Amino acid sequence: MNNKINPGSLLESMFLAAIESAQPHHSIPKYLPKDRKGKLIVIGAGKASAAMAKAVEDNWEGELSGLVITRYGYSVPCEHIEIVEAAHPVPDEAGLSASKRLLSLVSDLSEQDTVLCLISGGGSSLLTLPFEGISLDEKQAINRKLLKSGATIGEMNCVRRHLSAIKGGRLAAACFPAKLITLMISDVPGDDPRDIASGPTVADSSTCADALDIINRYNIKLPDYVTDFLIAGDTESIKPGDRCLKNSEAYLISTPQLALETAADLAIKQGLSAYILGDSLEGESRDVGKVMAGIARQVALHNQPFSRPCVILSGGETTVTVRGNGRGGRNVEFLLSMGLQLNGQPDVYALAGDTDGVDGQEEIAGAWISPDTLTRAEQAGLNARQALDNNDGHGFFEAIGDSIITGPTRTNVNDFRCLLIL
Amino acid sequence: MNNKINPGSLLESMFLAAIESAQPHHSIPKYLPKDRKGKLIVIGAGKASAAMAKAVEDNWEGELSGLVITRYGYSVPCEHIEIVEAAHPVPDEAGLSASKRLLSLVSDLSEQDTVLCLISGGGSSLLTLPFEGISLDEKQAINRKLLKSGATIGEMNCVRRHLSAIKGGRLAAACFPAKLITLMISDVPGDDPRDIASGPTVADSSTCADALDIINRYNIKLPDYVTDFLIAGDTESIKPGDRCLKNSEAYLISTPQLALETAADLAIKQGLSAYILGDSLEGESRDVGKVMAGIARQVALHNQPFSRPCVILSGGETTVTVRGNGRGGRNVEFLLSMGLQLNGQPDVYALAGDTDGVDGQEEIAGAWISPDTLTRAEQAGLNARQALDNNDGHGFFEAIGDSIITGPTRTNVNDFRCLLIL
Repeated sequence: MNNKINPGSLLESMFLAAIESAQPHHSIPKYLPKDRKGKLIVIGAGKASAAMAKAVEDNWEGELSGLVITRYGYSVPCEHIEIVEAAHPVPDEAGLSASKRLLSLVSDLSEQDTVLCLISGGGSSLLTLPFEGISLDEKQAINRKLLKSGATIGEMNCVRRHLSAIKGGRLAAACFPAKLITLMISDVPGDDPRDIASGPTVADSSTCADALDIINRYNIKLPDYVTDFLIAGDTESIKPGDRCLKNSEAYLISTPQLALETAADLAIKQGLSAYILGDSLEGESRDVGKVMAGIARQVALHNQPFSRPCVILSGGETTVTVRGNGRGGRNVEFLLSMGLQLNGQPDVYALAGDTDGVDGQEEIAGAWISPDTLTRAEQAGLNARQALDNNDGHGFFEAIGDSIITGPTRTNVNDFRCLLIL
Repeated sequence: MNNKINPGSLLESMFLAAIESAQPHHSIPKYLPKDRKGKLIVIGAGKASAAMAKAVEDNWEGELSGLVITRYGYSVPCEHIEIVEAAHPVPDEAGLSASKRLLSLVSDLSEQDTVLCLISGGGSSLLTLPFEGISLDEKQAINRKLLKSGATIGEMNCVRRHLSAIKGGRLAAACFPAKLITLMISDVPGDDPRDIASGPTVADSSTCADALDIINRYNIKLPDYVTDFLIAGDTESIKPGDRCLKNSEAYLISTPQLALETAADLAIKQGLSAYILGDSLEGESRDVGKVMAGIARQVALHNQPFSRPCVILSGGETTVTVRGNGRGGRNVEFLLSMGLQLNGQPDVYALAGDTDGVDGQEEIAGAWISPDTLTRAEQAGLNARQALDNNDGHGFFEAIGDSIITGPTRTNVNDFRCLLIL
């Protein structure tokens, strides 16, 4: 059986199956209201929002209108729902003006109206409307400081929710008293709805005081007037039990776990055993790579904790502390480190990629490694250690032809990592 | 069944079982020459060397003499073999003068002589004899820089082997043409004999050029004359195939894997399933902690990749990049990070400790965490995040009474980590 397995194509087909499982046309129909002949106002933001809007159009019979914001390059042509493209991960004017229009679209509705809100990863910077009195420039500056601070995504989002006029449940408040249905594709560890696009339509139990704690913990300098907002509690988010949420429902329609399970099923069909190590692994990419190399080596040398042949899957989002000036991303950094640590260990292969098709800043989803990666690189005059030191994963894998390019997938269930031990 | 399990005492008994499995009196007898009536010259270095020498004395009938070097506090009274105590992890004068005597003991032997060399973890700093022209002060300074650099143990040892007059096979060269039997207790990832006490009696394929690469990679400042030795290749180690190794045999008598399997057996006897994730996991301690938290959470929430209740074991040696000035160690750093990441996740417990009884610089082996660790610490006025930022794991766990203290174990099979998910 193993003789028939082509490691590279098996890994790639698992990655593509994971992405496909997170495509809205599979999941959206199940979550639409049963009566599909009514009037629906569709709003939303995120890398998947245009694909989600298209899936709604394909499955709705009644009147449709609305506006969703997606990342540049992530549009899908729609007939009734307007698609606006804007910047990610640092918000821009296009996102700001679209967010204002989106908010005004739902600001004068009645109990007879139904709003469908389509939320996915990336929505936090696409749906951008600073609290009144804070400029976009200031918001961008704060965002950059947060991104560099070492704060977790949960902590960053807590601050963002308390400096926003649309996040932290405020979009739901605007929709009230209309009926509001939120469909979410999760790209965050733990799948907490508050953290998916900073939770524009869900309750937030965190407070201005929590945001201040985070600001102080990471020594982030804010202008005094912004700190004063937080101290005064002026920018408090919508809390659980608030009456504006009583006509509101929210559903997770795709998650990293579901994508990993889809990939596992594919491996099992190929006669391999498949194990999911975690749907939300975090840590510095190069160190997570070392740990995974250690686990793969244990399988290869001791048939522990799993028997060969097998695949070991994990999701979640690792982090890169940038030291060099190469073309990098979380997933290629992970793979470079793992490959170096494995040092040619026979029978171990791995793929890592971002399910949105973009690892870091490049239109490259990820890459894959095999036992001969280091020697092939050496023959091509490349040094994997130097590439890692320079955070140049994309440069490295592109040069040896082992990049994985999907193009924009128009969905996002975070990172996908798969080890294959034959 | 689970009601009967006391997580703290189960974890501690597994840790103690792992240590016991690495005690020389279990393994040494199997590896001694069949004819036990001859004359044997015993040398050696490491945290286990005194206990190993005692096991030799207890099982040898012929003439015994020799000298072994162990860490302060790790002596075991012997009748015929002299035990000298010296400093670890930074070498001192006692180690230096004992190393000189040890080398002279074996410097004029003939083919009729047999040398038994007892090597274990820690031997690298105990068996210390700088290459001629390098002072002990300088060697200590280089060692301190290496320990703080974030270099792996394999990388540190490569540098050490190329600045030494006794490591990297040079002790075997001194013994030649006597018959040489080396018995090793491994404390290094991958159990590479070159890395156990920097391989004083085994061949070393790494070179001065490799050592220079490592020095440059971690920006370690060396005096110019030392760099010049490396550039000139003056301090090259003994390479595979060298004739001085032809009467030499080397055996691994205890390993991290064996210790983990012993702990797994104990868990299985308690009705739990047990899995060994890897005997040689590496990576920055706090990031390895995050990955383990992610795996534990997957078990707790999804019964993947293992069903509850279970234990997940791993060995190897993580690294700490020191940023703060607290009382830290690899294992307590790992636990602090894991605890923070788990954030009170119910049913997850963990222990991490160094099997030599010393995590970092303290006579504390490690610690353990439970779902209420963070809240108990908070009640005691401690902040786990600040403790981690300050590398103050021992200060933290000592204050809440969750340190694990074994005293000197007189053996060393590296770190022991055990997750228990009930």
